[in-house]
Amino acid sequence: MASSQNKMFSQVADPVTHSGNKVTVVGVGQVGMACAFSILTQDLYIELVLVDVVADKLRGEMMDLQHGLTFMKHAKVNASTDYAATANSRLCIVTAGARQKEGESRLDLVQRNTDIFKGIIPKLVEHSPNTILLIVSNPVDILTYVAWKLSGLPKNRVIGSGTNLDSSRLRFLMSQRLNLSPTSCHGWIIGEHGDTSVAVWSGVNVAGVRLRDINPDLGSDNDKENWEDLHRQVVQSAYEVIKLKGYTSWAIGLSVATLAQTILRNGCNIHAVSTLVNGQHGIDKNVFLSLPCVLGENGVTHIVKQPLTETEKGMLHKSAALMYEVQSKLTL
Amino acid sequence: MASSQNKMFSQVADPVTHSGNKVTVVGVGQVGMACAFSILTQDLYIELVLVDVVADKLRGEMMDLQHGLTFMKHAKVNASTDYAATANSRLCIVTAGARQKEGESRLDLVQRNTDIFKGIIPKLVEHSPNTILLIVSNPVDILTYVAWKLSGLPKNRVIGSGTNLDSSRLRFLMSQRLNLSPTSCHGWIIGEHGDTSVAVWSGVNVAGVRLRDINPDLGSDNDKENWEDLHRQVVQSAYEVIKLKGYTSWAIGLSVATLAQTILRNGCNIHAVSTLVNGQHGIDKNVFLSLPCVLGENGVTHIVKQPLTETEKGMLHKSAALMYEVQSKLTL
Amino acid sequence: MASSQNKMFSQVADPVTHSGNKVTVVGVGQVGMACAFSILTQDLYIELVLVDVVADKLRGEMMDLQHGLTFMKHAKVNASTDYAATANSRLCIVTAGARQKEGESRLDLVQRNTDIFKGIIPKLVEHSPNTILLIVSNPVDILTYVAWKLSGLPKNRVIGSGTNLDSSRLRFLMSQRLNLSPTSCHGWIIGEHGDTSVAVWSGVNVAGVRLRDINPDLGSDNDKENWEDLHRQVVQSAYEVIKLKGYTSWAIGLSVATLAQTILRNGCNIHAVSTLVNGQHGIDKNVFLSLPCVLGENGVTHIVKQPLTETEKGMLHKSAALMYEVQSKLTL
Amino acid sequence: MASSQNKMFSQVADPVTHSGNKVTVVGVGQVGMACAFSILTQDLYIELVLVDVVADKLRGEMMDLQHGLTFMKHAKVNASTDYAATANSRLCIVTAGARQKEGESRLDLVQRNTDIFKGIIPKLVEHSPNTILLIVSNPVDILTYVAWKLSGLPKNRVIGSGTNLDSSRLRFLMSQRLNLSPTSCHGWIIGEHGDTSVAVWSGVNVAGVRLRDINPDLGSDNDKENWEDLHRQVVQSAYEVIKLKGYTSWAIGLSVATLAQTILRNGCNIHAVSTLVNGQHGIDKNVFLSLPCVLGENGVTHIVKQPLTETEKGMLHKSAALMYEVQSKLTL
Repeated sequence: MASSQNKMFSQVADPVTHSGNKVTVVGVGQVGMACAFSILTQDLYIELVLVDVVADKLRGEMMDLQHGLTFMKHAKVNASTDYAATANSRLCIVTAGARQKEGESRLDLVQRNTDIFKGIIPKLVEHSPNTILLIVSNPVDILTYVAWKLSGLPKNRVIGSGTNLDSSRLRFLMSQRLNLSPTSCHGWIIGEHGDTSVAVWSGVNVAGVRLRDINPDLGSDNDKENWEDLHRQVVQSAYEVIKLKGYTSWAIGLSVATLAQTILRNGCNIHAVSTLVNGQHGIDKNVFLSLPCVLGENGVTHIVKQPLTETEKGMLHKSAALMYEVQSKLTL
Repeated sequence: MASSQNKMFSQVADPVTHSGNKVTVVGVGQVGMACAFSILTQDLYIELVLVDVVADKLRGEMMDLQHGLTFMKHAKVNASTDYAATANSRLCIVTAGARQKEGESRLDLVQRNTDIFKGIIPKLVEHSPNTILLIVSNPVDILTYVAWKLSGLPKNRVIGSGTNLDSSRLRFLMSQRLNLSPTSCHGWIIGEHGDTSVAVWSGVNVAGVRLRDINPDLGSDNDKENWEDLHRQVVQSAYEVIKLKGYTSWAIGLSVATLAQTILRNGCNIHAVSTLVNGQHGIDKNVFLSLPCVLGENGVTHIVKQPLTETEKGMLHKSAALMYEVQSKLTL
Repeated sequence: MASSQNKMFSQVADPVTHSGNKVTVVGVGQVGMACAFSILTQDLYIELVLVDVVADKLRGEMMDLQHGLTFMKHAKVNASTDYAATANSRLCIVTAGARQKEGESRLDLVQRNTDIFKGIIPKLVEHSPNTILLIVSNPVDILTYVAWKLSGLPKNRVIGSGTNLDSSRLRFLMSQRLNLSPTSCHGWIIGEHGDTSVAVWSGVNVAGVRLRDINPDLGSDNDKENWEDLHRQVVQSAYEVIKLKGYTSWAIGLSVATLAQTILRNGCNIHAVSTLVNGQHGIDKNVFLSLPCVLGENGVTHIVKQPLTETEKGMLHKSAALMYEVQSKLTL
Repeated sequence: MASSQNKMFSQVADPVTHSGNKVTVVGVGQVGMACAFSILTQDLYIELVLVDVVADKLRGEMMDLQHGLTFMKHAKVNASTDYAATANSRLCIVTAGARQKEGESRLDLVQRNTDIFKGIIPKLVEHSPNTILLIVSNPVDILTYVAWKLSGLPKNRVIGSGTNLDSSRLRFLMSQRLNLSPTSCHGWIIGEHGDTSVAVWSGVNVAGVRLRDINPDLGSDNDKENWEDLHRQVVQSAYEVIKLKGYTSWAIGLSVATLAQTILRNGCNIHAVSTLVNGQHGIDKNVFLSLPCVLGENGVTHIVKQPLTETEKGMLHKSAALMYEVQSKLTL
């Protein structure tokens, strides 16, 4: 008996079943799902694959996204606990990882997440040897280093979401103070995604006008307008949001979706992301920290050489030394 | 001392501080936030106000969204526990409400959520007398009736998110079976958002070709292709997703965002939403059920008169009677 | 001496210089440029290549588009009189062709444009053997046949823009009559893109409600509401717009951009496009006419078998016979 | 006899027939239509009204846009030779005007276009007293002054499209030289939209890194990298495109659409537009020149005070004197 489908359609040619635009998100917690959903809403035309070890939650999230596909354009969503489903991904976004436990040292957390990465990174690379890895799990700078080591991929194809989010937070706070659109406020936060991040005040500008040319004390202790307070708020933001709602999700989701767009579309846009900084600003160790990078289909193609003050460089070196110390104690 | 801001800008005129496109979302649980985030990603140019009784969570969600505004265009986000912040909203989306407790009857739940609505709906209408209310909380059909009663608004301006989501789920399942884009699959689910919903098989079509003209048994018990199974899956979907991940969020968020877009932009698009059905299909009671409606800036302007079979009408009447019975026991 | 570029950037890896999403538009007249501009504004992430024989005009259009790239996202624009620049295009859109001269017969025009195609199609296929050809030049149905013959490509990869535009015009006119969004109005025009097109009234519906079930005379001579007048207006539209402004451009540009989106994104959406109809509806000749087709990365994968009345079939057969006769006199 | 429409729909409430987002475009030449089409493709939810004196062309353009509305979301298009149709526009974009005739002096052209404006501006303001005027016709700076005088509107609500386009051209050329996305290249051209425009090299930056800090000779005659050549190319661009294709359209269309978006959405973004510069940079005459301005629903709310070199200021003063001289000879 001919099915309705056969009665309704004459086949002319085989449809293409794979898009060549596969994006994998590992980890379907709040961060992973905010990343996945943000990417879907960007209308990038992708085939999204979710991976997690918790099969039930994974299937629930897949179904929930699929039920909304009618309201989107040209996206596909799949999920599997088996990494075979991720084969030939152009981009793999890793959000998996444990949160800090009560009484657990930061180093213990790093080791625990390193051990989790041992079960993820090699499988991703096995099935997608040409992929770009975008690491979101925290502490992001060290885990990006870990992913680089575990993957064996060239440094340009292992990227941490880094201070792209911190920079966005700074620009939002600037926009509040200046009554401007955040997209007309320009400023960069580099270094560690966390407490020791560096706000590069020399580059903060509006329409090409450097705030430091107007206020020479900008960002310093003598600054009567106390702009450094914006940076302090940025550093506090994550802690405060976590305290208030238990986790951060929307802003990191949008930040990662923006990075994904630039990478998938070979955008050659500049974003502050965590990259191997050996050789930059006098750093001589294999550590990952955020610097403004040109991103494209090949990952990080260029790092922008910002002119930094000695103080700013000193802060970067300090972060680098800290990263290096933690890394040296890790069992990879 | 002149501030940097004064040194940087000459003021020419006062900026406009309010957009006239305010949208309020009441309730910042998983559903409320998925609605809020979905609307923001649609680039509708709105001023979003979040309201909830839990001040900490509320502030955390607001901050998290604000930190992502750099990645969006022209949106504003605020939050308050005080309904004064919602003044002059064009659209108020209500997602607040309790979930069913162990051992609690459905009627108990309805009464509990009705009591919650007593603390929400009058305040919304007080501050935004010209608003449209879009109710998402479950059981959505009865709570839309409750909102209508509590608000005193004309029937066209009180809408339940209804079976817009169920219809999307059906279209996704059709798309899987027919290897088509969900947007090229057309089908409608009407009636109660829940167990007694009705799939209107006579209208299911692809490119104007009715599946029933190809398969006359479509949707019936004699259907060898068992299309009714798709409807069964739709009804099961919510239960299954809740069982798997604990709640549904993404699909309802996108469904509500689509309704919001049509309303805010006076779209005159047709969606299946919960509306006062007294006088439709022989129903003679003040109950809310989903039918295909033309939506615009004025809410529901028209209801589509679908030709229904006696069986389909019977199912609607049964749902209506059930709603009516529950409503008659409510303390409003 | 190090350049500013070298001083500003550390290179980490070679950027990717080709996107794999090349789209060629042949012909930079009003239609070609409306197609090119419409595609660019759809944010599809493409590398657009314009080709024409008039080098000055070509360079002017390229520069004008390039000067606007700051306002778009992730598009590239190039132009050349040399087909080598089109190498590895995924999609080639052909808008080149002469307009009817005073006193010139339609057949003369077809032969003239066939001769123009002899200088275009083989070169396109030489440089992009895996491309899909989307023919827009008029008379589109015959020229799509010509392109198929000249290209040697399989039938699924040679498509005419056909009645996708006529169907859009019908839906706009329906929307005016019914006060609905055009996207909530469903109707299909098939057959020849031109005077003998067929409005398939049996499929015209709103929310799955067939207008013919409400008005059994719909589209017939007895129809007191005279819906066939909408079809008449569609047929007259092209003539009227050409009379009024000299050519049509915006609507055909948007129509083609929509087809391009479905093809490039493997959308599996259904559009009325000109395809080889031998074997459909009893037609037994190698002619191209529009029918609803499922489009994707592989071109036309399926044709929808609409149930047509004998009158409708008769009209298709008549168009097919006419096409066939014209084709038989062509020198290919 | 009940119409199909009545049989198909139950009316619940009157639909809203006017959107409150009316945008008028005066002049349906190549520039006017590129502006209109660009704005429509931006999905801004507007009701577009085209106005021109040539009724046939006007109707043809309206129909052509309407036939494409099925492929857009939520836009309406109307046209009239009668300004009553423009009533209550939020934004009026004026592209009408004569082109320079052979042997005609520039001043003659200005007077001719001033006379044309006398038939446009008062009618626009009569029907939309709260509108913002966005002048695109050339010479744009003087005609914006003329529109300001003829309209009686406050200075913040009369804006010339100015050097927003020139700045975009500069950013595109920078992006070519640096292999970056144009959106990651920042630079501003101010002053006259034309031969005497000023490239503000001190503000040119990438990721906050000033090119002048890397190359102190940037933009000067001693610059071995000859960056000023980019500015020269920008100035030549318009001439070259006009020579090659007869007019410019796409880039100015996109530039104007971007300005429209910022204005309609109260964006508080900064764009270089022509504004009354009396009091800026020592200019003491009522002339319009482009400076970076904060734009919103209220038009120009702030002008950015860029620190300019004496040379740059001198060039602005020279432009201002020239404008003033031409204006003083005009019959208003």
